[in-house]
Amino acid sequence: MNLKKAALKLHEKLKGKIEIKPKIKVNKNILSLIYTPGVAQASLSIFKNKKNSYKYTWKSNNLAIISDGSRLLELGNKGGEAAIPVMEGKALLYKEYGDINAIPICLKTQEKWEIINLVENIALNFGAINIEDIEAPKCFEIVDDLSKKLSIPVFHDDQHGTAVVVLAALINSLKLVKKKLDKVKIVVLGAGAAGYGITKLLNYAGAKNILVLDSQGIVSPKRYDLNMYKLYLAKITDASEEGTLKDAIKNADVFIGVSGQENILSLNLVKKMNNDAIIFALSNPNPEILPNKARKSKNVKIIATGRGDFNNQVNNALVFPFIMRYILDKKIININEKLLYDFAKKLAKETKNLNFNHIIKGLIK
Amino acid sequence: MNLKKAALKLHEKLKGKIEIKPKIKVNKNILSLIYTPGVAQASLSIFKNKKNSYKYTWKSNNLAIISDGSRLLELGNKGGEAAIPVMEGKALLYKEYGDINAIPICLKTQEKWEIINLVENIALNFGAINIEDIEAPKCFEIVDDLSKKLSIPVFHDDQHGTAVVVLAALINSLKLVKKKLDKVKIVVLGAGAAGYGITKLLNYAGAKNILVLDSQGIVSPKRYDLNMYKLYLAKITDASEEGTLKDAIKNADVFIGVSGQENILSLNLVKKMNNDAIIFALSNPNPEILPNKARKSKNVKIIATGRGDFNNQVNNALVFPFIMRYILDKKIININEKLLYDFAKKLAKETKNLNFNHIIKGLIK
Repeated sequence: MNLKKAALKLHEKLKGKIEIKPKIKVNKNILSLIYTPGVAQASLSIFKNKKNSYKYTWKSNNLAIISDGSRLLELGNKGGEAAIPVMEGKALLYKEYGDINAIPICLKTQEKWEIINLVENIALNFGAINIEDIEAPKCFEIVDDLSKKLSIPVFHDDQHGTAVVVLAALINSLKLVKKKLDKVKIVVLGAGAAGYGITKLLNYAGAKNILVLDSQGIVSPKRYDLNMYKLYLAKITDASEEGTLKDAIKNADVFIGVSGQENILSLNLVKKMNNDAIIFALSNPNPEILPNKARKSKNVKIIATGRGDFNNQVNNALVFPFIMRYILDKKIININEKLLYDFAKKLAKETKNLNFNHIIKGLIK
Repeated sequence: MNLKKAALKLHEKLKGKIEIKPKIKVNKNILSLIYTPGVAQASLSIFKNKKNSYKYTWKSNNLAIISDGSRLLELGNKGGEAAIPVMEGKALLYKEYGDINAIPICLKTQEKWEIINLVENIALNFGAINIEDIEAPKCFEIVDDLSKKLSIPVFHDDQHGTAVVVLAALINSLKLVKKKLDKVKIVVLGAGAAGYGITKLLNYAGAKNILVLDSQGIVSPKRYDLNMYKLYLAKITDASEEGTLKDAIKNADVFIGVSGQENILSLNLVKKMNNDAIIFALSNPNPEILPNKARKSKNVKIIATGRGDFNNQVNNALVFPFIMRYILDKKIININEKLLYDFAKKLAKETKNLNFNHIIKGLIK
């Protein structure tokens, strides 16, 4: 049986990857404490001081995974219903690795202000919000606005989680090739949620020579077609060049692919990179270049992908539960570059290679 | 330690009465089926046919418990945060007795259309909606509007669940006193969600002589201060009298108290009832009359309350999981009087007395 059939069969058998479980066995005595009449005491206490919801309910360890399915991994805009199996999978991993109760909330609406308003109205049930698989730039506006309005952390895995994993992998990779982050030339292909988050974090971490590219070429201050998020990338990278990937890749030390474009990085382009080149071709399931092909160019030292069936997997899929556990435990409200940078360094330290399955084991212990 | 302290202590210890649990143990192979890349197959299948969300996700057995905390049991309007411990308790019972995954969604907004809009936008995650502890008449408008708009059942426990339990208890009580539902005079004190639901169901079940009272007295077609829901009660009960409880109670065979008013039914009033009188004083925690007091009047045959520490408990608290299980299993979309009547008869049959803890055991086996 192939993977596609096996996946559908398992989904049909499970009818849901997660479930609700009581944390206490009920008897008549317990019932009078956790339900009427005893529960009224907890309600009254919370009414008097809303912060007591952290003390008397599941809120502190509760996370809402919000998606409108407008940018489903690999699939594009497939709507809220189609997002449910993905968010269930995410919720399962949040519990399994982070011991966090994550609840998929997939939305019918794809309208920005309606989403913001809805999340505001349900946020009191949750200790944190995870925005997921919402298309850019809408996702940035939602994350930014909710971060201002809510008193709980608003995490955007596509942006924050991906940036952390990539930076951690890059820290270790640069050690292997004995280059410094502030000296290397980095090309980031893709200016969506991942490209945006990665570039911002690399810049914060001290990278001084970054070129970001979207489908129209290098994101440069000279362009007139940029939204405010791409303008910000143009500003922090201060790209003096205009041009395409062919122009950008010359003498690059690092290539980071988060473009969703299969095979876009040709061997000819790879050959234009500096010696000891590092390539993270992270688009899933089809990377910007396959490892076997990249290795044909002698200047390539490290090739990583997002896939688990190759060596050197750089994938946020198994890192978000740990970041969120850290955020909840440290009672962090604002998710900023400093937090992400600290966590990336921690992550890099936990492992000596790029395989993040190993990191996971390190963090779990 | 008294109940209040014990309740708070247990709430603090538990920090949530329910949690999310994975339904499958993860390994690398399973991960590739339930998460990327395999999960994309389930998403695509649902995108092509939204009904497949019932096949491939937890939707079919998923229930949202929606409350704005505007009419919290015993406490009145205490807001969404204060509703969380109550809805968690409800979710625990839904799982324990109905094997249903119920998720508390407590709301910041108390605005009717905002609530309706929000539920519409999250409904695709759920196989059913439970509206809970929202004040009347707003709750009726929300339930009616959502029932029209959604293709899943919208259950209102305060209305539907309570009506079922009361009718079941009344069927058995009338057998004991050898009276017929279509011949007895019934007084329903309280015209909120419970009074509304009970009166509609009693009427459907064949009761011909019902008087409903709100805080202003008998809900009669002659009054000019009634909202459309009370007008409907006035119409179906066709109350020819105006007046107070003192007027209504004369020669009543059955008193059903869902008023929230402690001790409002005096012994003098009870004495005006017919012989073999049936009294359901259901307000919690303080009934309209205490059993010991009611029994001082020789015409009283049956006295029941909503409390577990007296004999004859009539309480919807332990019945909703079974109704919802039935609704989900039978794939019922419209919750109407016929359904509630059928279930009340089933419930009455399961037991020979009024103690619904026994009914529960009957249903569980």
